[in-house]
Amino acid sequence: MTSEQHYATVARLSDSLSDETDKPRYRRLKDGLTRAIEQGELHGGEMLPSSRVLADHLDVSRNTVNRAYRELVVEGFIEPIERVGYVVNDGLGECDAGGRSRDGSSAPIRWEERLGALVEGDDERTRPAAWRSYPYPFVVGPGPEGFPIGSWTRAMRTALREEHRGPSLHNLDDQDDPLLVEQIRRTILPARGIEATRDEILVTLGTQHGLHLVAEALLGAGSTVGVEDPGYPDARRLFLRQEARLVPLPVDAHGVTAPEGLSGLDMVFVTPGRQFPTNVTMTIGRRRELLARAGGDGALIVEDDYDSEYCYSRRPPQALKALDTAGVVVYVGSFSKFLAPGLRLGFVVADPILVDYLRRLRHDMLRHPPGIIQRTTALMMEAGDYSRVIRRHRRALRSKWQAITEAVDDLFPWSVPSTDGGMSLWVAGPKGLDAAALAEKALDDGVVIEPGRSCFLGPDRPARYFQLGFAAIDRDAIRPGIEHLARLL
Amino acid sequence: MTSEQHYATVARLSDSLSDETDKPRYRRLKDGLTRAIEQGELHGGEMLPSSRVLADHLDVSRNTVNRAYRELVVEGFIEPIERVGYVVNDGLGECDAGGRSRDGSSAPIRWEERLGALVEGDDERTRPAAWRSYPYPFVVGPGPEGFPIGSWTRAMRTALREEHRGPSLHNLDDQDDPLLVEQIRRTILPARGIEATRDEILVTLGTQHGLHLVAEALLGAGSTVGVEDPGYPDARRLFLRQEARLVPLPVDAHGVTAPEGLSGLDMVFVTPGRQFPTNVTMTIGRRRELLARAGGDGALIVEDDYDSEYCYSRRPPQALKALDTAGVVVYVGSFSKFLAPGLRLGFVVADPILVDYLRRLRHDMLRHPPGIIQRTTALMMEAGDYSRVIRRHRRALRSKWQAITEAVDDLFPWSVPSTDGGMSLWVAGPKGLDAAALAEKALDDGVVIEPGRSCFLGPDRPARYFQLGFAAIDRDAIRPGIEHLARLL
Repeated sequence: MTSEQHYATVARLSDSLSDETDKPRYRRLKDGLTRAIEQGELHGGEMLPSSRVLADHLDVSRNTVNRAYRELVVEGFIEPIERVGYVVNDGLGECDAGGRSRDGSSAPIRWEERLGALVEGDDERTRPAAWRSYPYPFVVGPGPEGFPIGSWTRAMRTALREEHRGPSLHNLDDQDDPLLVEQIRRTILPARGIEATRDEILVTLGTQHGLHLVAEALLGAGSTVGVEDPGYPDARRLFLRQEARLVPLPVDAHGVTAPEGLSGLDMVFVTPGRQFPTNVTMTIGRRRELLARAGGDGALIVEDDYDSEYCYSRRPPQALKALDTAGVVVYVGSFSKFLAPGLRLGFVVADPILVDYLRRLRHDMLRHPPGIIQRTTALMMEAGDYSRVIRRHRRALRSKWQAITEAVDDLFPWSVPSTDGGMSLWVAGPKGLDAAALAEKALDDGVVIEPGRSCFLGPDRPARYFQLGFAAIDRDAIRPGIEHLARLL
Repeated sequence: MTSEQHYATVARLSDSLSDETDKPRYRRLKDGLTRAIEQGELHGGEMLPSSRVLADHLDVSRNTVNRAYRELVVEGFIEPIERVGYVVNDGLGECDAGGRSRDGSSAPIRWEERLGALVEGDDERTRPAAWRSYPYPFVVGPGPEGFPIGSWTRAMRTALREEHRGPSLHNLDDQDDPLLVEQIRRTILPARGIEATRDEILVTLGTQHGLHLVAEALLGAGSTVGVEDPGYPDARRLFLRQEARLVPLPVDAHGVTAPEGLSGLDMVFVTPGRQFPTNVTMTIGRRRELLARAGGDGALIVEDDYDSEYCYSRRPPQALKALDTAGVVVYVGSFSKFLAPGLRLGFVVADPILVDYLRRLRHDMLRHPPGIIQRTTALMMEAGDYSRVIRRHRRALRSKWQAITEAVDDLFPWSVPSTDGGMSLWVAGPKGLDAAALAEKALDDGVVIEPGRSCFLGPDRPARYFQLGFAAIDRDAIRPGIEHLARLL
């Protein structure tokens, strides 16, 4: 920009910063910049002032400017140019600038009257969209590192050969790739102690998709679902979408407690392999108890076995499904934690009648998970590469787990219970700690943590818990990140 | 198998063929073979008798045996070995043979009491699952041929490079790949006359997924939806799932007719670019009329623009959305017909408020379409390969369209109205023709056609229509296939 325009823009940005709202400063700055880009004040290809210059002009910290810039990168408004700065993306304003003329004569659509209410309350985002660009991302979930690029590319090439092209590229109607189903049966399930026939397996687009189909098939207004408290908020949202009533089941050091009064529950949702978010593994006694009580009372058990393979000091326990002689367990598995979430691949193991029903639901809703991803994954597994990847991931994660456990032990002012696996720590702060405020403050130091409040049910949800994921962060960044965080505690 | 076992098995198969059921013979044979495999009578690795031998023994036609074998291949029970025959797959019986002991003490689960009723009526499969293995597959929808393997593999390799790995492999939360959204805005939409900002675009897993999200967001018990009659049955199923009431709108040579009484309708579902299944393109007059009536009466219009690019004798007309100044059109597009259905990729263009809502629904249900497919497609488009592919597909399809039009003109005993594009013909047989029976008979000659009855609404659905898809079949197979079919007419 010319210096004159420059000053006009900075003045307007300064105005938007002084707006009296509850929004954080970086957010107001970001909104101001978005407006400037959309209104064509900042043109495509134009360099933005360096964070130092803009911070000086606006009298804010460089962190604030950097944070606004990072969010704009994620939303596609600007692009980073290495060692130079940020440039406004081309052609962003053109549609609006071209001025599509909405017909003023007809009344605007009142969307709020047409759209059903979404499930409220639990959709607090616990991390910024741009978390990848922070130096210390202690986010929950896996990172993109360690993906077996060579094996994947090889398998993809094979998947596109003549003999595989049909299943890879064609409409499979309501079917799954039989090769993938076979690999799930032979490679994944035996390691979890599960035997299944092919008609007991449905391929999904990951855990959430499996849970959605199950909820859609089995729950309606007035259904009752027992859920772990604290537990996985994204499963709860699905049950609430079906207008089910949630019954909190407390979690202790042995896992979830199934009260005698399981009677009356239609479904129980559990994470026995590693309880989300506490990382507790359910004891064998509790498992037998749960199965006995559910079987007797007719509640179905939905088992989310999301990161079974990541035990670092012992063999992973078998799945609850492996003990299920009555066929009451619906097992939900995923490739997200073992290959990559970006593949969106998972599966459900359940009674053939339920699987057939889910298959038809899935067909109505979206046909099937992409054939090309199913076939490529199957070929990778057939080549033995999948098992190698898991072993490699487990080694890398064990090393990160040791690093974070040590760092937290050394640096935190209070003690964090140890775990024997998983991809995150569950930290209970002292009474009075506001984890959301801590998370907000930590961002200014480049540290991303996830407040745990949304994992709890009910009106008095404690605010002092947070999760420290250690899979997406570089091993070498773990200790410095924990140091930054400890300084704030 | 030893000859003694062989004869025992053949005797049992012969028994299952003589079961008195309504099932076709090939189906009874297939079921008998499935049982023999599951009960370990036929072992993994064992060769099946040739179709000639088995047909002789059982006194059925070789077509019947071949058809049963083909279905078993699709379901993964047996595998073809080129120029040799069929072999039973390994390890299929092991789980059942190992004998998972279902606990006899607890009552079996009564699934029928737990599962909601699925939408009935319209889920008649109109083609065999194994259609790919028939010599003359006149199925509706694209084939796997012509997929740009080179460009795709190149783009996939790039998508896995450091700088693209995050968006390709990571959880995108509720976001889409900004590169793909940009390519949709710049490459696809302008060709359809549509201008859209980024917040008006949502990436989906194909048309059906887009329609499902829209139905889920906007329809509930008692909503009324105007649908084309005949029309697309899979869209109708989604509306019925929401317990909406369907109002049939007749289709003539100008496209769908929007009655003056659009008032009272909450939504109208249309395929103006090429009406499904009749292939009629909606005239500009009808379009303006529909928009005027919908705008005034407050009905939203859902436009399914599934094969816009395939006009062979003139430029494709712009989308209805291009004329939409009031923001009442929800546009649903897909990559299935232009790249491959196996990618499961599509998009919705609509008001930002609706898009934001659909985005949150999608996040609850399955997160997002696979990042790796989004980024790879975006990079392919950026390289200009997508437009090249479309042009190549259009050329190949035009040639098939000429071949089928000529063959039908030459060989059919009645005339079929000409079209100027698309991927199928809509054939009205003479009064009294039963297209379902014709389709069943044609299968024995290796010809797959799709009966059109399920496209109609109401109790008196005509049985004499069928669809002849010409995209999935080889060009050289078109005329011989039509010859076979004409012989049956």
